[in-house]
Amino acid sequence: MTDLALQIGENIRKRRLEIGLSQDNLALTAEIDRSYIGRIERGSVNITIEMLYKISIPLQCDPKTLLPEADKRLVQ
Amino acid sequence: MTDLALQIGENIRKRRLEIGLSQDNLALTAEIDRSYIGRIERGSVNITIEMLYKISIPLQCDPKTLLPEADKRLVQ
Repeated sequence: MTDLALQIGENIRKRRLEIGLSQDNLALTAEIDRSYIGRIERGSVNITIEMLYKISIPLQCDPKTLLPEADKRLVQ
Repeated sequence: MTDLALQIGENIRKRRLEIGLSQDNLALTAEIDRSYIGRIERGSVNITIEMLYKISIPLQCDPKTLLPEADKRLVQ
């Protein structure tokens, strides 16, 4: 697990709870497997940018807002 | 190829040329295979967010600036 994946997972979870969406609903609307959403939120997978854009639609937010500030240590 | 991957590749290429970096130099400094950089810039691969952050370091820019504006059609 990288810090980057952990922070992205945390941001996705925070936004999902903010708009009162369950993991099931997010998985359904984003057409993603429910267990994969759980792994994303736990930061245990390194998602593609396409997946980020897909998830941002039901989360009703700009995908960039789900990304942490750039920091070299995030990818070391 | 998705529109999203094409636009990201274009943004990466534009930024690389802006700062006068060759594909070879970008590959070397980002510790990525040279041919993979070519595929990224042509939009033929769907990169991870981690790869985007890695590439943004030698490109000396915020990774978010390499991302296109959110648009549902980008991921359909």
